[in-house]
Amino acid sequence: MLTYKLTISYDGTVYSGWQIQSNALSIQQIIRDKLALLTQISDLNLVGSGRTDAGVHAAGQAAHFRCEKKLDIFRFLHSLNALLPKDIRILSMGLVDNEFHARYSAIGKEYHYCIHLDRVMDPFRRHYCWHFHQPLDIGLLQIAAPLFIGTHDFTSFSNETHKGPASRNAVRHLTRLDCCQVKGGIRLEFEGDGFLYKMVRNIVGTMVQVASGIRHIEEIPLIFAAKDRCAAGPAAPSQGLFLFNVKYK
Amino acid sequence: MLTYKLTISYDGTVYSGWQIQSNALSIQQIIRDKLALLTQISDLNLVGSGRTDAGVHAAGQAAHFRCEKKLDIFRFLHSLNALLPKDIRILSMGLVDNEFHARYSAIGKEYHYCIHLDRVMDPFRRHYCWHFHQPLDIGLLQIAAPLFIGTHDFTSFSNETHKGPASRNAVRHLTRLDCCQVKGGIRLEFEGDGFLYKMVRNIVGTMVQVASGIRHIEEIPLIFAAKDRCAAGPAAPSQGLFLFNVKYK
Repeated sequence: MLTYKLTISYDGTVYSGWQIQSNALSIQQIIRDKLALLTQISDLNLVGSGRTDAGVHAAGQAAHFRCEKKLDIFRFLHSLNALLPKDIRILSMGLVDNEFHARYSAIGKEYHYCIHLDRVMDPFRRHYCWHFHQPLDIGLLQIAAPLFIGTHDFTSFSNETHKGPASRNAVRHLTRLDCCQVKGGIRLEFEGDGFLYKMVRNIVGTMVQVASGIRHIEEIPLIFAAKDRCAAGPAAPSQGLFLFNVKYK
Repeated sequence: MLTYKLTISYDGTVYSGWQIQSNALSIQQIIRDKLALLTQISDLNLVGSGRTDAGVHAAGQAAHFRCEKKLDIFRFLHSLNALLPKDIRILSMGLVDNEFHARYSAIGKEYHYCIHLDRVMDPFRRHYCWHFHQPLDIGLLQIAAPLFIGTHDFTSFSNETHKGPASRNAVRHLTRLDCCQVKGGIRLEFEGDGFLYKMVRNIVGTMVQVASGIRHIEEIPLIFAAKDRCAAGPAAPSQGLFLFNVKYK
């Protein structure tokens, strides 16, 4: 058995998200079906590093599949991209150890979240940014960011409990949260060992509340302490979020 | 009578181009109809600086309309954007002299053309670049560019004759043609006093022939001399072209 790793970029605008669902068009389903067609393995299993929600994008999602055949990687990659819709592209493909698992071997992830601050929305960014047209204090965003860095119980910033019993350990280690000023807005860059469901969007939603004066910055430690999703702000919209990179050893 | 100038940005992907056509969805038509609705002037005439073709984008198209009413510009702009589809945005609006004419008062234009050179297409740029995946000699593009700068008869790089008698003077003055290396590709920036129909795309198509070894750079003066559209290369695809700015005194 051979294991192949894929690095995938997709514009999530028209999809229901990464994960296969019975009644909706998922990115995982589309790629899996094309892989099954090319490898002639009808029950081929494509495993991603994790899900992304509807409307969320990826610049570097990772996935793996296993197959008995030795594939000509250059030609296979070309054929796979030719079959896929243009909003999904396989950036690279490689043979990896059989121990490799796109989800369990991941040691970290990087997410970017883009906020567009011009008074009028840029039509070219309408699917790739949160257009926030009220005044935003970028200095406050920069003061708030370090409060999330380090090892914390992120229960208040996770929607995991909304999907069942909160049995999963919600302690995560965020190694980086940078506020980068870009033309017309801000890009928040998150790096950590792992992220809970909707964690990035809930942190962004809360930071924006602080930076727009709706919530005081001193509330952030109290939100962590509450361990209650209702204590934090609403999730920022999906279209501003990019899974930028998945890290492996 | 009062004259209002609009600066407009649009993603041209789904439109038949700027100009009103009887059987297709044009940007001019959409904006004109919303203006007629807001001003209650049923025969309102919206005049653009010039046409853009199907699939071509604008970061700074200019247009004007005339109206008896003194409009509250801030509120009117907000209402107009609220009525328009999200891929068309009015960036700014202002009251100008009654002598102003979006087309005849223009003293220059700036166009950008984006070429994406990575082996695999970036899904986020699929509508905004020409994905050229064969080898391209950027040094040759840079040597070719100055050959187009200055005052020339651009007949060979114009499709005007395909639309009727070649009665229009084809002498134009190109003041700038820069090849800017950007992440994953090249952006060609054109500035000049005026541009003939498909002139930028025909120049880009010819420059890319030179840079990919299909045509020798020494042919360029011969193409100019031929004054024949058939002497030049094919037009580069529409989706890489942006009307970046229209200059007025």
